[in-house]
Amino acid sequence: MNLILLTPEDCPQSNIATLSGRRLQHVLEVHQAQVGQQLRVGMLSGLMGNAEIIHLDKQSLQLRFELDQAPPPKLPLTLLLALPRPKMLKRIFQTVATMGVDRVVLMNSYRVEKSFWDSPFLQPDAIQEQLILGLEQGKDTVLPEIILEKRFKPFVEDRLTSLAGDSLKLVAHPVAEQPCPRDVQQAVTLAIGCEGGFIPYEVNLLAEHGFTPVGLGERILRVETAVTALIGRLF
Amino acid sequence: MNLILLTPEDCPQSNIATLSGRRLQHVLEVHQAQVGQQLRVGMLSGLMGNAEIIHLDKQSLQLRFELDQAPPPKLPLTLLLALPRPKMLKRIFQTVATMGVDRVVLMNSYRVEKSFWDSPFLQPDAIQEQLILGLEQGKDTVLPEIILEKRFKPFVEDRLTSLAGDSLKLVAHPVAEQPCPRDVQQAVTLAIGCEGGFIPYEVNLLAEHGFTPVGLGERILRVETAVTALIGRLF
Repeated sequence: MNLILLTPEDCPQSNIATLSGRRLQHVLEVHQAQVGQQLRVGMLSGLMGNAEIIHLDKQSLQLRFELDQAPPPKLPLTLLLALPRPKMLKRIFQTVATMGVDRVVLMNSYRVEKSFWDSPFLQPDAIQEQLILGLEQGKDTVLPEIILEKRFKPFVEDRLTSLAGDSLKLVAHPVAEQPCPRDVQQAVTLAIGCEGGFIPYEVNLLAEHGFTPVGLGERILRVETAVTALIGRLF
Repeated sequence: MNLILLTPEDCPQSNIATLSGRRLQHVLEVHQAQVGQQLRVGMLSGLMGNAEIIHLDKQSLQLRFELDQAPPPKLPLTLLLALPRPKMLKRIFQTVATMGVDRVVLMNSYRVEKSFWDSPFLQPDAIQEQLILGLEQGKDTVLPEIILEKRFKPFVEDRLTSLAGDSLKLVAHPVAEQPCPRDVQQAVTLAIGCEGGFIPYEVNLLAEHGFTPVGLGERILRVETAVTALIGRLF
């Protein structure tokens, strides 16, 4: 936790926050902090700044804070992800929040197991919990937007064109010959399938909607590895 | 498992392998394969090729295989990693093997918790287990070299110069102004500290030995995320 994220409910008085639970435990056990110590804080969806610990015991932590710094800019990236398996999904939520992805569409694909859509990790509270862990890691306050699209064809045919706008549209496709571009200076919409990629029908439908298939070399990466490596390469 | 890794012990006859345990379970449960089906295989440290299932039941799997393809080239990368926490270490071993890192030096640093060096995940068998999972994911047969250096200063002062040779020498340093280069066409030795980076003394000592501090933007990445993002950016 490189930043403690506050919400308005933590702060009945302006500039004073009272925390318990996970954040208190972290400050006690990991920071091993004491009264008087400074911590980095941020208001969810708002500014970041410094806080001083004015009270700390096993029951509660009280901070006096001043917020004066804008959060870092988001990456101009919309990530279209074929819904990954639940265990991996948790880590991907954290990673995309840490890296500053602006928007993630979790979408269906032929290779997505139907049962994944019933995962408790897709409940809004569970998603937000992982995103907040990611923001606290990356020192950001702004949640990425998460969109669920349970049907591939209607999403691609009816909504994707307006969602992607005039961004650079790419679909990661293990067998594509054209390599993924580097250091792009524009907004990107990047589609990543399950392991092994999208099926040809899906790649073709995305291509018909302006997406260029790009390869990643001969090695097959886990989805979470591909997400991170591609972000590192694109921006 | 995109490739089943074989060892000479699996193959009392040339071109026939008999497998049980983890690989058998995977073929039964994930591939849901049947006799006659083709699978991708590779010989540890050797060639890759196709195999046909000639026998399959709950006790054993027998494959007839032909090896005729070289494994993919390694990335010309030596990664110097301040020893990460054990849970993360397992995933990093898999990731570096999947991505084709040539050599990893796990080294001490001021911010490494001493107890991490006693982790059972650092036993040679445990390391190899994770590396093999990574190779099977990335479709490679050649293990990365793993070197343990429990003392920072003697390693940097006495052995690093010859290890790094004339490669491009970089140290990831969150506050460095110079960004990490992209698409380098040469061998790289890249040092990555614990979260929060190396302490100034360590960065200075690395700089005295030819390492350029490079930044990663304002966001603080988990070590495993930084490793993957930097590889995606460098190569």
